[in-house]
Amino acid sequence: MSPDNHIPKLLDDALEQFATLPGIGRRTALRLALFVLDSPKENVEHFASSLVRLKQEVKFCPKCRMISEEGACPFCSDSRRDHSTVCVVESLRDVISIENTGQYKGLYHILGGVISPLDGIGPADLPIDELVRRIEEDGIKEVIFALSTGMEGETTAFYIYKRISSLPIIVTALVRGVGFGDDLEYVDELTLGRSISNRQVFNP
Amino acid sequence: MSPDNHIPKLLDDALEQFATLPGIGRRTALRLALFVLDSPKENVEHFASSLVRLKQEVKFCPKCRMISEEGACPFCSDSRRDHSTVCVVESLRDVISIENTGQYKGLYHILGGVISPLDGIGPADLPIDELVRRIEEDGIKEVIFALSTGMEGETTAFYIYKRISSLPIIVTALVRGVGFGDDLEYVDELTLGRSISNRQVFNP
Repeated sequence: MSPDNHIPKLLDDALEQFATLPGIGRRTALRLALFVLDSPKENVEHFASSLVRLKQEVKFCPKCRMISEEGACPFCSDSRRDHSTVCVVESLRDVISIENTGQYKGLYHILGGVISPLDGIGPADLPIDELVRRIEEDGIKEVIFALSTGMEGETTAFYIYKRISSLPIIVTALVRGVGFGDDLEYVDELTLGRSISNRQVFNP
Repeated sequence: MSPDNHIPKLLDDALEQFATLPGIGRRTALRLALFVLDSPKENVEHFASSLVRLKQEVKFCPKCRMISEEGACPFCSDSRRDHSTVCVVESLRDVISIENTGQYKGLYHILGGVISPLDGIGPADLPIDELVRRIEEDGIKEVIFALSTGMEGETTAFYIYKRISSLPIIVTALVRGVGFGDDLEYVDELTLGRSISNRQVFNP
């Protein structure tokens, strides 16, 4: 038993581990640990091994840094995708979000982070040289920035832009504007301002 | 990649496993799987092994069926607790809840379930003979029912009561009534009715 609660140690170990996950508090962690305790042994072993395998067997695409089982990732090895367009994103999470829209058929370049002096992440820590090499060697015609709008995302986009703007490519970025379903009253001023100044021809 | 989404298989396996946990939807499961992907390998292995160990190494107290590392559980082997009182609960979860109140210093008897014909759980599937044996052999003077108030919990309590009522012990149960902080307007009629008919002398 741990001293400050009434939970047997084996259970408490599992609880503590669940509680390290984002958004999981101790109460939920206890519920999950009790669920594991009540689950068939094979299920728990399957669960545990899927996590360990994710870490042990994961490989990254040498081109775009996407997770890949072996060699080039499913995007880079898919001849039906547009290999002349590369979308620069911060993380795999962003790739999944963009893929879910079904609106993009080019390739990706996953930075794995953004330039952040406070966190000690400089340009050299990101695969920017690799991006330049892809542009030069792989016949890329357009680079799309899909980075977050914060200071760090914009700094990163600006830095990369300086590195690639002399190359014979088009550089684009996500349009920022009022979202579908957003109530104008609650849209922040920066977004609404940009949305008006970059207004588009009405074409219903 | 799985066919209906854009998530690499290794990641999707981990996602699916997280999604089997209670209260974890696919969106949260993806967040947790990505967290695992970004975590140090040692942390993930530690997490996985804590779950497997919970299932592999868990033992149950031969007296009360509490989780125990070895032999008698911390309750049954604690001489400072009142060994003449046994509280009958459905699960370990209930033990933790009662212990958290700090109001109980006796022992427990964990049924691991309640009589539920629909789920095929009969009296013989619960450790009721073991409870009778404890009463007869261990000098138990009081049995407290702390079972849920539903039909099944009450059936179970009634069945056990019939088995032990002829023994020289006191049988008690949790008092049911209006909770602290409950607004009378929203208390169900059964609870409020019982709380009035079983009213106690006001003693502020």
